[in-house]
Amino acid sequence: MIGPLWNKPRTTVLGLMSGTSLDGIDAAIVSIEGAGPKAKAELLHYYSAPYDEALRERLKELCTTQHSSVDLVCGMNAYLAGKFADACIEAVRGAGMEMDEIDLISSHGQTVWHIPEGDVHDPYKVRSTLQLGDLSVLAKQTGRPVVGDFRPADMAVGGQGAPLAPYGDLILFRHPSKGRLLQNIGGIGNCTALPPNAGPDDVFAFDTGPGNMVIDQTVYLLSEGKLAYDEGGAWAAQGTVDEALVSELLEHPYFTMEPPKSTGRELFGKAYAAEFVSRAGARGLGTSDMVATATAFTARTIAEGCKRFVFPRCSIDEVIVSGGGAHNRTLLNMLRQSLPKQTILTSGELGVSDDAKEAVIFALLGNDFMHGISNNLPSATGASRSTVMGKLALP
Amino acid sequence: MIGPLWNKPRTTVLGLMSGTSLDGIDAAIVSIEGAGPKAKAELLHYYSAPYDEALRERLKELCTTQHSSVDLVCGMNAYLAGKFADACIEAVRGAGMEMDEIDLISSHGQTVWHIPEGDVHDPYKVRSTLQLGDLSVLAKQTGRPVVGDFRPADMAVGGQGAPLAPYGDLILFRHPSKGRLLQNIGGIGNCTALPPNAGPDDVFAFDTGPGNMVIDQTVYLLSEGKLAYDEGGAWAAQGTVDEALVSELLEHPYFTMEPPKSTGRELFGKAYAAEFVSRAGARGLGTSDMVATATAFTARTIAEGCKRFVFPRCSIDEVIVSGGGAHNRTLLNMLRQSLPKQTILTSGELGVSDDAKEAVIFALLGNDFMHGISNNLPSATGASRSTVMGKLALP
Ligand SMILES: Nc1ncnc2c1ncn2[C@@H]1O[C@H](COP(=O)(O)OP(=O)(O)O)[C@@H](O)[C@H]1O
Ligand SMILES: Nc1ncnc2c1ncn2[C@@H]1O[C@H](COP(=O)(O)OP(=O)(O)O)[C@@H](O)[C@H]1O
Ligand SMILES: [Mg+2]
Ligand SMILES: [Mg+2]
Repeated sequence: MIGPLWNKPRTTVLGLMSGTSLDGIDAAIVSIEGAGPKAKAELLHYYSAPYDEALRERLKELCTTQHSSVDLVCGMNAYLAGKFADACIEAVRGAGMEMDEIDLISSHGQTVWHIPEGDVHDPYKVRSTLQLGDLSVLAKQTGRPVVGDFRPADMAVGGQGAPLAPYGDLILFRHPSKGRLLQNIGGIGNCTALPPNAGPDDVFAFDTGPGNMVIDQTVYLLSEGKLAYDEGGAWAAQGTVDEALVSELLEHPYFTMEPPKSTGRELFGKAYAAEFVSRAGARGLGTSDMVATATAFTARTIAEGCKRFVFPRCSIDEVIVSGGGAHNRTLLNMLRQSLPKQTILTSGELGVSDDAKEAVIFALLGNDFMHGISNNLPSATGASRSTVMGKLALP
Repeated sequence: MIGPLWNKPRTTVLGLMSGTSLDGIDAAIVSIEGAGPKAKAELLHYYSAPYDEALRERLKELCTTQHSSVDLVCGMNAYLAGKFADACIEAVRGAGMEMDEIDLISSHGQTVWHIPEGDVHDPYKVRSTLQLGDLSVLAKQTGRPVVGDFRPADMAVGGQGAPLAPYGDLILFRHPSKGRLLQNIGGIGNCTALPPNAGPDDVFAFDTGPGNMVIDQTVYLLSEGKLAYDEGGAWAAQGTVDEALVSELLEHPYFTMEPPKSTGRELFGKAYAAEFVSRAGARGLGTSDMVATATAFTARTIAEGCKRFVFPRCSIDEVIVSGGGAHNRTLLNMLRQSLPKQTILTSGELGVSDDAKEAVIFALLGNDFMHGISNNLPSATGASRSTVMGKLALP
């Protein structure tokens, strides 16, 4: 057997996350003490590198069955790795560090497809997930060892490969006496419920549905490609929510499915938003009403998810929002209205930068790989057992 | 820095190869002494698992820009890993061994796309290569550590990611006084020239062009899907070669390109064979004449490659054929006619089973990864430096 690949009490790991929003790359340089559930993480530096619009549009195409093809998957896998390497180099420079002070780079990769359950109509479309950003290219271009591509390992032991963040949420946010719900609002929304003093088996998590994805795409369509998102929620703040339409949207079967469950651009991508805009238009909604309604839809999916699946199991005192959606004040206000009994905070208010949180978590996962420690959370992903996720490439 | 991942003087490695022929999976259980260029390999057991026709046809589609899409890439990556795991389990059973006697599985993966030089018309189609068969799925299903996905690392340091076999050819076949040419005839043909007493910098290698790929696809078309290849070369033996057509085919610019060079299904796949059959039909060739002509084409590309690129650099005494094409007697006879001054042998005659050779070589590459030893050969791939290729997934 292979033992632990290293045995360092304190390591510096650069975590990389690029989420389903396709907004860009988050890089977090993290000092980690120990490993596993008792690890302690300190964020040393955060850097974010946006994708340019041409790349984002190309990636959106790549995330469709109609406009994708094997040659683009092949090329993009190496191309993105180059972008990830550039982001690492910039992050290290910005931190005033040298690359060789980084013990490890740990990269999530860019998800372009996810099949949480095998497709009954196609024997080859088994349970699987595809994250691009080749680990060897990243290792050779940075000169550092790289761990990444975590999700397939969880799926190989029967999990959905998502959500992975709850493992890190537990490490970063468990509280001795308060029940906490971690709500990340990236392209997809996902929540982690941590009962007071939670251990690994007490964690309960699932993807709540679209986070910013439908809002972003609606804004993109209505602004004719000029805006990628609703800065601060300003546009939504000017509109009136069509509550009846929100209720209709909540009838999508995803929202009543029992967790564990995960979703992505396959369900709530370009086509879904286009359909939303045309339905809203047919009901006579103006553009700000449409953005307000899309925003309310996200807020309601989160609140309904809590009421249906979380509150019956554990009491929640604080809802801690992270991800880019934490910057959308209209969305946060709507969430406060829908969940009046909970305190709504952002993770930044608790000392873990809203934008950096997921990248910090992937730094923890990579560190565990090197220690040979299991880093999936079966209670969150539905996996049959805990296992070491990730793959290692050498510089 | 990460040191060697293990330090075993003798290991048992299961090498897996599935080539561009899409014929199936070759598994070689190899006992390896040492590591790097001085390693010694002994084949303990060989097992081959053919793909069924439905899978092969689906893979052929996946290897086209027109009929591929991201969801199939995603699903197939996990599906094939399951097939690879089954092959490992069967190989171990057939050898009368237990899975835990295997120290490591080393897997090439199934190439579905290869971009040896970046596409000037598309900034995202950079130099890259795509091998399917997820390493984590394979590790979890077999319970063994897995190294694989070697090619991207060589490309990341400026190589073409191919051919990789020459590194192993050098280890297995170098001779103190004879000049040897190793000619593998898989889907693609590739040759490795080893001058007498060659060292790593003396090796010279390149893809000669189509190996069995055009023959196979021609046979498949002419038999209306009943035959996947020309067993023993029997069909070709009944026909007459259209020498003029062979000469025309040899005008393809690939054959005059200077090495290092590599090719694949992108150039000589389905579309190429369909075009060949229609041109041959227009010239009035019968079916056996067509198969004979396709076979002669392969023989001539090999001989011309030797005369143009190899013989001017070093004298060759023996041409050692391996891969499935070694079973095609008509092809071997044509090769003997085209290269009258060399002795044409099969690698089996030198004690390294024709079919197992490439899988044995991938076992060597994985063993080197674990020792932290460079396993690419810049003289063959054009890489700017030697580097450790591969990625590691844990069970
Ligand atoms: N200032 C802001 N105002 C409103 N929304 C924002 C702001 N900054 C980021 N966002 C939203 O957050 C998204 C990015 O969130 P992120 O957490 O990176 O998601 P992912 O993990 O899916 O990439 C953007 O696409 C946008 O919708
Ligand atoms: N008995 C045989 N007679 C003729 N050709 C054969 C025979 N066995 C295998 N082949 C040829 O060899 C190919 C498989 O060769 P292989 O070395 O596995 O190629 P690859 O590495 O591309 O998979 C088959 O597709 C077929 O063309
Ligand atoms: Mg993001
Ligand atoms: Mg084969």
